[in-house]
Amino acid sequence: MILSSVRKLVLAVDVCFCLRTHFVKSFHCSSQLFKKLPANWQHGRLIAHRRSILNKMAATDKSIQEILQPLRDSVKEQGDLVRKLKESKANDIDIKKAVNELKARKKILEDKEISLTPSDAIFQRTRLEDLLKRRFFIDISFSIYGGISGQYDFGPMGCAMKHNILNLWRNHFVIEDSLLEVDCTMLTPEPVLKASGHVERFADLMVKDEKSGECFRLDHLIKAQLEKIMEDKDLSPTVKNECEEIIARLDGYSKDEMASVLKKFDMKAPLTGNDLSEPVEFNLMFSTSIGPSGQVKGFLRPETAQGIFVNFKRLLEFNQGKLPFGAAQIGNAFRNEISPRSGLIRVREFTMAEIEYFVDPDNKDHPRFQTVADMKLPLFSACNQMDGKPVEEMSLRDAVSNKIIANETLAYFMARIYQFLVKIGVNPTKVRFRQHMGNEMAHYACDCWDAECLTSYGWVECVGCADRSCYDLTQHSKATGVKLVAEKPLSEPMEVNIVDCLPDRATIDLNNIEKVHEKDEIYELKLDNKSFQISKEMIKIRRYPKKIYVKEITPSVIEPSFGIGRIMYSIFEHSFKIREGDEQRVYLTLAPIIAPTKCSVLPLSGKQEFVPFVQQLSSKLKEFSISHKIDDSGVSIGKRYSRADEIAIPYGITVDFDTLKAPYTVTLRERDSMLQIRLPVDETAPLVRDLCSGVKSWDDAMKMYPLFEQQEASKD
Amino acid sequence: MILSSVRKLVLAVDVCFCLRTHFVKSFHCSSQLFKKLPANWQHGRLIAHRRSILNKMAATDKSIQEILQPLRDSVKEQGDLVRKLKESKANDIDIKKAVNELKARKKILEDKEISLTPSDAIFQRTRLEDLLKRRFFIDISFSIYGGISGQYDFGPMGCAMKHNILNLWRNHFVIEDSLLEVDCTMLTPEPVLKASGHVERFADLMVKDEKSGECFRLDHLIKAQLEKIMEDKDLSPTVKNECEEIIARLDGYSKDEMASVLKKFDMKAPLTGNDLSEPVEFNLMFSTSIGPSGQVKGFLRPETAQGIFVNFKRLLEFNQGKLPFGAAQIGNAFRNEISPRSGLIRVREFTMAEIEYFVDPDNKDHPRFQTVADMKLPLFSACNQMDGKPVEEMSLRDAVSNKIIANETLAYFMARIYQFLVKIGVNPTKVRFRQHMGNEMAHYACDCWDAECLTSYGWVECVGCADRSCYDLTQHSKATGVKLVAEKPLSEPMEVNIVDCLPDRATIDLNNIEKVHEKDEIYELKLDNKSFQISKEMIKIRRYPKKIYVKEITPSVIEPSFGIGRIMYSIFEHSFKIREGDEQRVYLTLAPIIAPTKCSVLPLSGKQEFVPFVQQLSSKLKEFSISHKIDDSGVSIGKRYSRADEIAIPYGITVDFDTLKAPYTVTLRERDSMLQIRLPVDETAPLVRDLCSGVKSWDDAMKMYPLFEQQEASKD
Repeated sequence: MILSSVRKLVLAVDVCFCLRTHFVKSFHCSSQLFKKLPANWQHGRLIAHRRSILNKMAATDKSIQEILQPLRDSVKEQGDLVRKLKESKANDIDIKKAVNELKARKKILEDKEISLTPSDAIFQRTRLEDLLKRRFFIDISFSIYGGISGQYDFGPMGCAMKHNILNLWRNHFVIEDSLLEVDCTMLTPEPVLKASGHVERFADLMVKDEKSGECFRLDHLIKAQLEKIMEDKDLSPTVKNECEEIIARLDGYSKDEMASVLKKFDMKAPLTGNDLSEPVEFNLMFSTSIGPSGQVKGFLRPETAQGIFVNFKRLLEFNQGKLPFGAAQIGNAFRNEISPRSGLIRVREFTMAEIEYFVDPDNKDHPRFQTVADMKLPLFSACNQMDGKPVEEMSLRDAVSNKIIANETLAYFMARIYQFLVKIGVNPTKVRFRQHMGNEMAHYACDCWDAECLTSYGWVECVGCADRSCYDLTQHSKATGVKLVAEKPLSEPMEVNIVDCLPDRATIDLNNIEKVHEKDEIYELKLDNKSFQISKEMIKIRRYPKKIYVKEITPSVIEPSFGIGRIMYSIFEHSFKIREGDEQRVYLTLAPIIAPTKCSVLPLSGKQEFVPFVQQLSSKLKEFSISHKIDDSGVSIGKRYSRADEIAIPYGITVDFDTLKAPYTVTLRERDSMLQIRLPVDETAPLVRDLCSGVKSWDDAMKMYPLFEQQEASKD
Repeated sequence: MILSSVRKLVLAVDVCFCLRTHFVKSFHCSSQLFKKLPANWQHGRLIAHRRSILNKMAATDKSIQEILQPLRDSVKEQGDLVRKLKESKANDIDIKKAVNELKARKKILEDKEISLTPSDAIFQRTRLEDLLKRRFFIDISFSIYGGISGQYDFGPMGCAMKHNILNLWRNHFVIEDSLLEVDCTMLTPEPVLKASGHVERFADLMVKDEKSGECFRLDHLIKAQLEKIMEDKDLSPTVKNECEEIIARLDGYSKDEMASVLKKFDMKAPLTGNDLSEPVEFNLMFSTSIGPSGQVKGFLRPETAQGIFVNFKRLLEFNQGKLPFGAAQIGNAFRNEISPRSGLIRVREFTMAEIEYFVDPDNKDHPRFQTVADMKLPLFSACNQMDGKPVEEMSLRDAVSNKIIANETLAYFMARIYQFLVKIGVNPTKVRFRQHMGNEMAHYACDCWDAECLTSYGWVECVGCADRSCYDLTQHSKATGVKLVAEKPLSEPMEVNIVDCLPDRATIDLNNIEKVHEKDEIYELKLDNKSFQISKEMIKIRRYPKKIYVKEITPSVIEPSFGIGRIMYSIFEHSFKIREGDEQRVYLTLAPIIAPTKCSVLPLSGKQEFVPFVQQLSSKLKEFSISHKIDDSGVSIGKRYSRADEIAIPYGITVDFDTLKAPYTVTLRERDSMLQIRLPVDETAPLVRDLCSGVKSWDDAMKMYPLFEQQEASKD
């Protein structure tokens, strides 16, 4: 009993964590962190250095702290109020109101923080978007038909990059953590999503233009209209204040609260000015009919997780009945967003990669936790959010032992997520793990941390890491009557009391039943006037003790869930660069391991003598499965380098006049430094392979071969 | 003019090919064929040997030929009639009837051929299906909810195998043929699929139970009911004959013909016996609404091809405007089959891999055709089908020069498809390329060859290879008004006559128009009484010659289209084996390159001393990204080998008592031969890596290390 309520206390993260938390203050980036990265990961160290600078700068810049302090105090004051209300068991409505106020204050603090970040964070989004479209990383789907909002196609560059990321994900998680990967169908019959709660709860509020039928997502509409009202220079300060407050608190508003805002400001449909309908809940799942009868209702899955849960029994069997184990799935999911904007951040069809790690609910330790326990992660706990405190670097060992993170398995996966994000090129100074506060957690979760990346859209949730407890398995078990449990050996056998009911064989003729069954027919118990009395003689009730050696448990599940498109977008922003001294030359510093094309092959001119060398290099690269691009267009070599930089090609091989004579050498150029080395033709493809797989670094290559001194600009 | 009608003649494959065809008879497998495979592909050579035996056997078995000859003659007789009717331009209905009769006769011939194949082809499908389900390669989706027909989930084994196949596909096609891979959305708005013809034509005939509403695919229902009628022993030979004929011809029946069969035999709904509705066309696309208004109708794509066509403009740009080039896409497609059966062969959601290769319609040569021209493929031309002749091995050079295959690009991709199928483990003696006859080609195709695999379901279409001509680009261009063309440089500039119309600047005040436009306003031409007379003075018409250097062409497209599930199923059947002398031990001989798990690690017993060696091996394997399975369950080593064989694990490392003492060795066992070698622990993971990537063969390994002589059976 006592244990169980301690457990409850632990899970009520928004109230209790901080009561027993002693933060290990650590603003400096730990070199420990990068020990877990592959040894050849030079890039990581560079960024670690930058992060350290940034943190120091923030810590010493007193004027910034002075601006933020009152906002922090305001958050803390409200956080304390929420705690007090919860402790005194105040009524739900009062708590909810106080929490909304808290969120509003947090948002003001965060907006201010972002606005005060150093100027290198100011970002030219349009130029990036132009590059992504022009070089066909991504484009709006069906653009020749006018396009469909919220749907994007990946062109050759985006597709190859996505594929590289997913392959790395497989190696990093499926292979290294020995997960069972599955590939389930997207079309999902209604009962499955009823059980999971999606049919009932997976909805956003919307209003319709009464005449045209156009739909608007309610919170977006209110925000846009209030912002328009605030543009009026003659607006009274009171109204302006009110508008600001509503915008800040909108996220937490109920349907009724939003409806009253609509009424108060007499909001109409944009453009037409028509009346708006009452707010309605719009389910975000795409529905369809499976089969021709129209009677089997189905949906496109809104997440890949359910496919794993419904296969739990088979997967447990596959794992020979043992806990813990993890399953994984990569695949598309669909959400019929009401009015998708924000590019790749909010789309209707997207690729997810999800892990469901099943654990004993009474023991969420992870066998490999010790391998990551000393890593320090940027944690933004619920407690810090309520106190108006910033993100803190903390070792996972401390976070778990101080109950900031609920258990080892959750912490272990947060570490693995962080390693993965940094490996594929997310800027580690622009990642944080934000803990959900109690009231914003999904209906199934009991603790949840989002890995968020800082972009020009603000902090964007890219990976969720939730403890879904036993919610899903319990729900599917209820809906189907199929036991979804694991057997846990008891430390010592337990005696239980059995009550058994046996038919009396003399009275109920079992032989007769058997005979009928043998003929594969159904045995009918003959009843007089449709009622049948079971007399005392017919059955015997036995009571006896029995020893049992295992008990059945419904596993808890820890779920790391990756939004691949959002991660890709964050990487695009984090790697978008403008060449110093040449505003026109933009490029992407994608890590070679995820770069769509690994290498360009550039004959200096159209001379026929270059062709055999180009072909020899190309077939060698193909042999190693290295994607490459031959650019033999007539333009200057400088222009071709710059075109290759735009699509993030990390290495460029140039065939020039020195190539034609023994000892037959070419130059190899690295994208970010623009430095070139000169090396034998035969050794080029193997070197590029080693550079791209991370076996060798560019520094290694520079030590092996002489620098090629000719300046890039001189070739333009 | 003459050229163009020759072209038409060439494309009318069902009529004309054989008129100028001289087949190169070649029943023996050419060793040439396997030159194109990787040098390390030992498996290929083995199978080539088997095929050669099979062909020789068929050629010499006179009794088989005697049985088949009258059936072949009957096909040829009807084929000749069809040709005659087409030549004499008989009316369409007569031709169609004759073609249906031809198809019926072909089917009778083919069924007989299959029934006469050697006994090793007789196949225990239930045992395979049991294995696939039990070891979770695949299972019916949502099985705890009762399952959904036509949907399958891939478990850990199926998923890993699928992933390996797709990775190989990417290397084989995308990298080696320098294709532009894209990843487009599945949700497709209606106008796109209207343009492609799917909204109108992508349908099957069905009938409904008038009372219960249950739906039946019409041809399946008729076939089942006729077969039931034929079970009646008292049935008159006339009726029996009629039933047989209808079944054989059913594929070619029109809606009206099927309806009259329904009426004639007074067919009712199975089980209920209720009346059936009139046949209706049921569109096989899953429909849904995109966005919340319900006004944007969309479908789940029925093929991945359209995503490439709508992006043609961007892809051509990406390829710097040059033809030919190919694009590729891997992804899911959806078909709402009326009553899917046949396991993975006919499903509602499936993964495709498609290539769209865009070529100049006047020159469909392929730059790499010479690299495959001497390969011999098993071709089943339309002509041979009409003549009742069997499949013939023919070099692609001969097939193209004799116009059996319409062009080099089509032939090139057929070769590449064949190489791919053999590489991933399709049995080359069970593949053929069957050409579509004119009347069975899809509405967009002008020549089409299916790579079919022989399974217990008969010959199954696994890869289509069609010349879609310019159909799709033309359709999308018409629907959107966007030009989807490439510019083709003319061999010499052409002079064309231009007619130009210029306003007379003195009469029409251009300055005034400009001023208005500068204010971003629309210039209104003032009209008297809404009519405006253009006088001779206002405009000047000029005629002059102009030199042009390029012409615009709509490319043709060659489309190889892979059904991944069907290919996987064929591989399952082709690799399913029963251990000689032990009926209970079944296993799958999947090629190491696609095997889901590459290696098992087996400690001989639960002894604690073995653990560090197992862990050391496991982490080394992880370092090389080699998927492996540690089986430390208590059962005998023989049983564990046999469990590993079932899931096709090609190599097994056993840690035994000799491992514990210097020089620390383990045994390595190969699945198919069950032979073991003994080698140092340190050298094991690198050897397994080389074996699985094809760098080394098992024969190489046997030469490097001593055989481990202990018999497997003795360990049981």
